[in-house]
Amino acid sequence: MKGIINDRFMLKNKVAYKLYHKFAKDLPIIDYHCHLQPQMIAENYHFRNAYDLFLGGDHYKWRQMRSNGIDEEYITGDKDEFEKWMGFAKTLPLLIGNPLYHWTSLELKRYFDIDTPLNENTAKEIWDKCNELLKTEEFSAKNLIKRSNVEIICTTDDPADDLRYHIQLREEGFPTKVLPTMRPDKLVNIDKVEFMGYIEANGLDTYEKVITWIGERITFFNDNGCKLSDHALEYVPYALGDAKAVFEKKLSGEELTQEEIDIYKTALLSECAKWYTKYGWAMQVHIGALRNNNTKMFEQLGADTGFDSINDLCIAEKLSAFLNNLNMADILPKTILYTLNPKDNYVLGTMLGNFQQGPKSGKIQFGSGWWFNDNRDGMEDQMRALANLGLFGKFVGMLTDSRSFVSYPRHEYFRRIMCNLVGTWVEEGEYPEDYEALKTIVEGISYKNAKEYFEF
Amino acid sequence: MKGIINDRFMLKNKVAYKLYHKFAKDLPIIDYHCHLQPQMIAENYHFRNAYDLFLGGDHYKWRQMRSNGIDEEYITGDKDEFEKWMGFAKTLPLLIGNPLYHWTSLELKRYFDIDTPLNENTAKEIWDKCNELLKTEEFSAKNLIKRSNVEIICTTDDPADDLRYHIQLREEGFPTKVLPTMRPDKLVNIDKVEFMGYIEANGLDTYEKVITWIGERITFFNDNGCKLSDHALEYVPYALGDAKAVFEKKLSGEELTQEEIDIYKTALLSECAKWYTKYGWAMQVHIGALRNNNTKMFEQLGADTGFDSINDLCIAEKLSAFLNNLNMADILPKTILYTLNPKDNYVLGTMLGNFQQGPKSGKIQFGSGWWFNDNRDGMEDQMRALANLGLFGKFVGMLTDSRSFVSYPRHEYFRRIMCNLVGTWVEEGEYPEDYEALKTIVEGISYKNAKEYFEF
Amino acid sequence: MKGIINDRFMLKNKVAYKLYHKFAKDLPIIDYHCHLQPQMIAENYHFRNAYDLFLGGDHYKWRQMRSNGIDEEYITGDKDEFEKWMGFAKTLPLLIGNPLYHWTSLELKRYFDIDTPLNENTAKEIWDKCNELLKTEEFSAKNLIKRSNVEIICTTDDPADDLRYHIQLREEGFPTKVLPTMRPDKLVNIDKVEFMGYIEANGLDTYEKVITWIGERITFFNDNGCKLSDHALEYVPYALGDAKAVFEKKLSGEELTQEEIDIYKTALLSECAKWYTKYGWAMQVHIGALRNNNTKMFEQLGADTGFDSINDLCIAEKLSAFLNNLNMADILPKTILYTLNPKDNYVLGTMLGNFQQGPKSGKIQFGSGWWFNDNRDGMEDQMRALANLGLFGKFVGMLTDSRSFVSYPRHEYFRRIMCNLVGTWVEEGEYPEDYEALKTIVEGISYKNAKEYFEF
Repeated sequence: MKGIINDRFMLKNKVAYKLYHKFAKDLPIIDYHCHLQPQMIAENYHFRNAYDLFLGGDHYKWRQMRSNGIDEEYITGDKDEFEKWMGFAKTLPLLIGNPLYHWTSLELKRYFDIDTPLNENTAKEIWDKCNELLKTEEFSAKNLIKRSNVEIICTTDDPADDLRYHIQLREEGFPTKVLPTMRPDKLVNIDKVEFMGYIEANGLDTYEKVITWIGERITFFNDNGCKLSDHALEYVPYALGDAKAVFEKKLSGEELTQEEIDIYKTALLSECAKWYTKYGWAMQVHIGALRNNNTKMFEQLGADTGFDSINDLCIAEKLSAFLNNLNMADILPKTILYTLNPKDNYVLGTMLGNFQQGPKSGKIQFGSGWWFNDNRDGMEDQMRALANLGLFGKFVGMLTDSRSFVSYPRHEYFRRIMCNLVGTWVEEGEYPEDYEALKTIVEGISYKNAKEYFEF
Repeated sequence: MKGIINDRFMLKNKVAYKLYHKFAKDLPIIDYHCHLQPQMIAENYHFRNAYDLFLGGDHYKWRQMRSNGIDEEYITGDKDEFEKWMGFAKTLPLLIGNPLYHWTSLELKRYFDIDTPLNENTAKEIWDKCNELLKTEEFSAKNLIKRSNVEIICTTDDPADDLRYHIQLREEGFPTKVLPTMRPDKLVNIDKVEFMGYIEANGLDTYEKVITWIGERITFFNDNGCKLSDHALEYVPYALGDAKAVFEKKLSGEELTQEEIDIYKTALLSECAKWYTKYGWAMQVHIGALRNNNTKMFEQLGADTGFDSINDLCIAEKLSAFLNNLNMADILPKTILYTLNPKDNYVLGTMLGNFQQGPKSGKIQFGSGWWFNDNRDGMEDQMRALANLGLFGKFVGMLTDSRSFVSYPRHEYFRRIMCNLVGTWVEEGEYPEDYEALKTIVEGISYKNAKEYFEF
Repeated sequence: MKGIINDRFMLKNKVAYKLYHKFAKDLPIIDYHCHLQPQMIAENYHFRNAYDLFLGGDHYKWRQMRSNGIDEEYITGDKDEFEKWMGFAKTLPLLIGNPLYHWTSLELKRYFDIDTPLNENTAKEIWDKCNELLKTEEFSAKNLIKRSNVEIICTTDDPADDLRYHIQLREEGFPTKVLPTMRPDKLVNIDKVEFMGYIEANGLDTYEKVITWIGERITFFNDNGCKLSDHALEYVPYALGDAKAVFEKKLSGEELTQEEIDIYKTALLSECAKWYTKYGWAMQVHIGALRNNNTKMFEQLGADTGFDSINDLCIAEKLSAFLNNLNMADILPKTILYTLNPKDNYVLGTMLGNFQQGPKSGKIQFGSGWWFNDNRDGMEDQMRALANLGLFGKFVGMLTDSRSFVSYPRHEYFRRIMCNLVGTWVEEGEYPEDYEALKTIVEGISYKNAKEYFEF
């Protein structure tokens, strides 16, 4: 049985094939948003087996194993790791049409040269082959990154982080730049249970200290090469008012109203935006996750374990008001808007246009298909919306958003899908077969636009 | 003029053709959700003419005839039935791209061997041919079902129903199992005008009686082979509180607040869910209809006459909370979530994953394209969303949701569209051409998954 | 380098090609909704250069130039017009997948016989060629219309307009009918800052005068050939109450509640609808724009300058109630519902069906892909939704909604896309290859349905 990965994978016409193989394939990767642990890179983690590498922290896969009726013991429990691998192998053939099928095939092919489709019958053979290779130095965390032609990695970090591993990697001259990204959600989310513990741990007992502290942390991150921030907004907050008073009310133990919560969030986000603008950072805004839906499993396993889904709130008016408010104060930084709900693609695709402004081209970006949209249909829908509504040629393209050291083929996956879309437009006569113009577009979206946009 | 129904209908590549004809075509039908009247089956209804069979109760068709400017007299009025048939025949050629075109073509071909497209010119000839055949015993209600290779039918029934026709059919040994489905909307919808009449008619003058009664009715239905319930939720209610107090307030004639209405609904739905869990039933939840929009016509014709449409409320947060609440109390049954608004496809497709749990595979299902989505695009969109987000291979597949005795070809329609989608994934190199794995998927979605899931 | 405009543009199969070239291509244009200035037609405006013609008032293009980082000085500022043209020429090749690429190519080809793709290198040559031709009489406003085979133009006009240019054109016998369309937004939008100035300017100091005046203006427009109105609803208002009291409260300078605003709007819209019904007009309802998002640029450039986007409110319930309320009072006119947010396509596509009523076929219409949806994907999505849910064959088709004298090729664009969709249904075996039936559909949607529907 031949696997699905070959030169033509996802490239459904001649122009697409040419664009990918000539312009996109060999460009380095800029992975400007991921969740790799810098410690694992710095300490050059070695994976003990295929379970550890492929399934150890991957809640996308856990979720599908649960859908297949596999007992939690064999997913996140302490059963034998080969048994867990078998559970995944049994599930994969039923995942037709799911990106996990494509990702797993790509990962096995690119890192282990395994072409055989993974299923119940091939699970043992593939397990053995992977495990043998994983023992070699070629498969350490650092070497997996090197082999993947990754020029820049941006991790996701709490403002309080001392960035010791980023500094260590820089000082030792690790050839891939591993840069921090600031994600100040814990400081912004005054409505979450973790908030009080967070501000206490960081000695932030007055609003002035909060404001001073976040500025200092942004400056520290900036000094250590940070070029982006990231904000997860389950909804878009927007309200103007006295944030200091809200903070003090929170400290006094009183319950906050929704309006008060939004006043504090708006103020904090605006304070951050001011610094991002000053340092030329890009602000990433991730909208629309509905997290930790299953209380039982949250209590058992905690967050980010596969119990999140897509929210469907109305976002346009508040998002517009929030961005407009920053713009009026001249503190609207470069911004990337992501949505988890594809119903918002056309809202975001038009929101960009309201705040584009030179001299930066593509100042406001519509982020690539994210999480549940990180699949062929989701990426195509995002790109079609962007192209119909905006300037596709300046799109900053793909990021992995991943916790896995073998997720870099998702850039290949994206580039193939993007080249296929562009190639289809050409083949169908909607754009001239002008390879000079097409080279600019394809190289731009694969690599150059991100490099230029983030000013790495 | 050749009609559109042939071996290749909806099968747009070789793999699709092979999958349908080899694996899907000959499997029996499990129609686990429909609106056939069991009395018509038990009494073996004979149709007086093509109008009676095709148009008599079909508000999908009435709606399009109205769109074509046909006077209501010639739709639901008492004009000559051939004239009504002519009105439909005139309208059909304009319904290009509409599922009614495909369904009508399939129905004429499969039951009457008529290949000629229905239009103004062919209406008389087809009318005559159909009417001649309708006189024969082959075209009685029972024989139409037998000829359609239907193994199981699940009707839709009020909790108060005595199920006499289901019992009669079982006792007489009718080869197709005709099972009841409990739809307790009238007991749940405390905000509807029918509520007071309903509880009075059933002697439910205390909350305790309501609770006792619904448990007894569920048990009675279970004793008579029921395996599913069905709930139509125009919106998703979720509020916790004292349902007994709400019920008593309602009885006292006072106006309920929205919060109170939702408290009662949440309590009743949870009470039902408890019993469904106990008996291993599947709970169907149909979300998003906006019904009876035209007051004038509602007063003239009543409900379910073609004046319903799609609502667009935000549903994610309350649906999540409702399911989570059941899950925490260990009373979340097998559940099928349907949406009428395709904007919710990605919300539902991810909601499933929050509550999947072994040992049942696919415990929470995303229901097939429903009502206004019961067409090629709608079914494909639902299946693509499901595949991108979940475990397509365990999908329980199609139901007719129909009032018509000749709607079984909609299963053929679905299977062809499903095989075409799967075949396209294979032809485009996104899944291996592995016919063992594909057989499992295609047979599963066509028949076996439903059989196993509902435990018929 | 060959451009993209040729006989097969957008026609991707043989049936599509045949349908377009045989049935659609040569039909006259009915442009029943546009924003041309009647004064420019009546005074037979001559364009000073390619900037003036293509970029002078086109905020679609300005928006994309801003996305490309071009300084506002070179967009709406007073820099040299050739420099501005260069900015657009530099931007266009990056607009792959955007309708501006197709529109610009069509406009250059159809009016100037220019096949060369516009880019930085060809900008000067194209600039010179266009400017030379623009000097000739062939390129006056009137001659551009004549050359475009336009039978009817409906402009967009304030109720207070004296229609002098419409009258002048009629009296001088200009062969294209230039008819007014009433857009009473300024009178309806009691919540906008312009409201008080508007009613004062028109002497409307009592509610009675408002009601009398709008009736008189509708009658005056009707006497001058008006057949349509247009309402831009950022959201759908619906509330019943004492509109006179609201109006008086407004005059007294008090702040209105949202409920009061909606009472006034509902009353005014209903009053208008009464007159539209009386005169047999069609009421256009445009839902879902989120306008003037960028306060800074609004203050600098005013409205309609490229800072609008798509809103995402829930619209179904209020829209249903509003239409139902008119219908109950027998004052629901022919209505065309447009949405800016494609998430609403299925809501509108089913809303139609609630209020269809003979003898008019297609009384309630789902308007063509509008503004941000006026592109191949947007038009196809609207047409697929309409076809799946309603009577595609009675669709009234395309309008330009444009401020430009060279936007008529958008009708060609639409017809090609529509023929391609219809042709694809036939090629894929979903509709018979019956050219008599197909002719009716294609001619209808291209021209005849609009002619019959609006009763020009």
